[in-house]
Amino acid sequence: MNRLPPLPDLSRLCIHTVTTKPWSIEEIADRYPAAGVKGITVWRQNLEGRDPAKIGELLRGNGLDIVSLCRGGFFPATSEGDRQAAIDDNRKAIEEAASLGAPLIVLVCGAVPGMPLEQARDQIRAGIEAVLPDCERTGVKLGIEPLHPMYADARSAVNTMKQANDMCEQIGSDYVGVAADVYHLWWDPDLQSEIARCGELGKLFAFHVCDWKTPTADMLNDRGLMGEGCIDIRRIRSWVEATGFKGFNEVEIFSSHHWAKDQNVFLEEIVKAYRQHV
Amino acid sequence: MNRLPPLPDLSRLCIHTVTTKPWSIEEIADRYPAAGVKGITVWRQNLEGRDPAKIGELLRGNGLDIVSLCRGGFFPATSEGDRQAAIDDNRKAIEEAASLGAPLIVLVCGAVPGMPLEQARDQIRAGIEAVLPDCERTGVKLGIEPLHPMYADARSAVNTMKQANDMCEQIGSDYVGVAADVYHLWWDPDLQSEIARCGELGKLFAFHVCDWKTPTADMLNDRGLMGEGCIDIRRIRSWVEATGFKGFNEVEIFSSHHWAKDQNVFLEEIVKAYRQHV
Repeated sequence: MNRLPPLPDLSRLCIHTVTTKPWSIEEIADRYPAAGVKGITVWRQNLEGRDPAKIGELLRGNGLDIVSLCRGGFFPATSEGDRQAAIDDNRKAIEEAASLGAPLIVLVCGAVPGMPLEQARDQIRAGIEAVLPDCERTGVKLGIEPLHPMYADARSAVNTMKQANDMCEQIGSDYVGVAADVYHLWWDPDLQSEIARCGELGKLFAFHVCDWKTPTADMLNDRGLMGEGCIDIRRIRSWVEATGFKGFNEVEIFSSHHWAKDQNVFLEEIVKAYRQHV
Repeated sequence: MNRLPPLPDLSRLCIHTVTTKPWSIEEIADRYPAAGVKGITVWRQNLEGRDPAKIGELLRGNGLDIVSLCRGGFFPATSEGDRQAAIDDNRKAIEEAASLGAPLIVLVCGAVPGMPLEQARDQIRAGIEAVLPDCERTGVKLGIEPLHPMYADARSAVNTMKQANDMCEQIGSDYVGVAADVYHLWWDPDLQSEIARCGELGKLFAFHVCDWKTPTADMLNDRGLMGEGCIDIRRIRSWVEATGFKGFNEVEIFSSHHWAKDQNVFLEEIVKAYRQHV
């Protein structure tokens, strides 16, 4: 197997703020740059009670590139009112991203238990199309994140790269692409070819990394630090980079275990794992 | 959507012994027939300390059709010795099935955390091929059960109907087919077409039902009774029956919640749920 070398430096390391959940955005603004981190993806809860524009200035002033805002989506619903509320919330997220200076919003597209997945995907497509004028006006793009099939009941009816690519083609907007996360996709036998297809379509907007632990004790909050699990992250990165992707490698870890630690220690572990396993 | 009617009777209801885990095989031999259940799939742990041939006589004597033995598989391993031990254990399972009078063994094919899934699939195929002479001698068939992608780390590198169909084609033996379980497969956008393909190949050997709960509290032992979750079981049954499948609908539920109940009550609930939701 043709192996990529390790990453030479931290210039493409981005961390999602949820990864160090115990820290406020102000703490993060100091500590990520001090550890050599260059990029940041901001979760919306970190903006609560803040002015997104000022947070954007703070982060950029400290040398951080703002990679994306997490997250929009959750379009499917069983009533017209709830569908409209989801569209309105996504419009608000686009305004927040524009104020923050984030060029991309990651979409967890949504699903409703018992709703046929085809219907949920129709509602997702319609929801995305409804907010496209806001994207065009602000310049903010949307990244459809295919989620692991274990989340198909309630979190996303888009569960593979192929489905995300298909939806991008159906929508046909320069503002809509894909956010690929190894946690959700590593098992897929079509992953290499669908990453290549995504690249050919010009739709590979983001790349997220973490690891899959054995056993996984919790379906939401037991993701592994890179190297703690079974995912060959570097192999998948080689497929991503074969498309010409030159964006950030974004560390996104939900982990009750790691959140319980001193986050300064965890941040050191992230940097070390990034050098060894991404 | 063209809906099938409910099943007219219990003549195609099979239950896996693990579903009523607290009961011994002798208790099961009395209680399933008393509840109108016609088929049984026996888990190997229920045969421990028993003579499989005598258990087979007991079950058939009480009017039960023995549908399959669960389970073989777990072929991939990191040492030759462990791979041979897995093959030997599968040969033993084939002998048990022959003695019991079970025409089929369900395969949970196996995976090793960190082993590339392609390599695991090669070892699975080699393992199955190694035991084919035992199948031919005894007449016992093997059903590859594709497992949900959340089990790709340690339980099975075969995660979709397409992969199971592909492997059947590669092996090309009349003794190797597919056991399709709605729990593992319901999310797959290619499910309908791959069930149809499986039927065309003459490979649809078994059909398992249960439900997917939201939330799922445990990745192994929180399966739902039919109707407790989001799976449109009847729709999938319609795809299965469109292939000409006339076998049993096998109820296979691992559930700490349901195992904690009086199993007589649970058995009544299974029969009711079968009539309403399968």
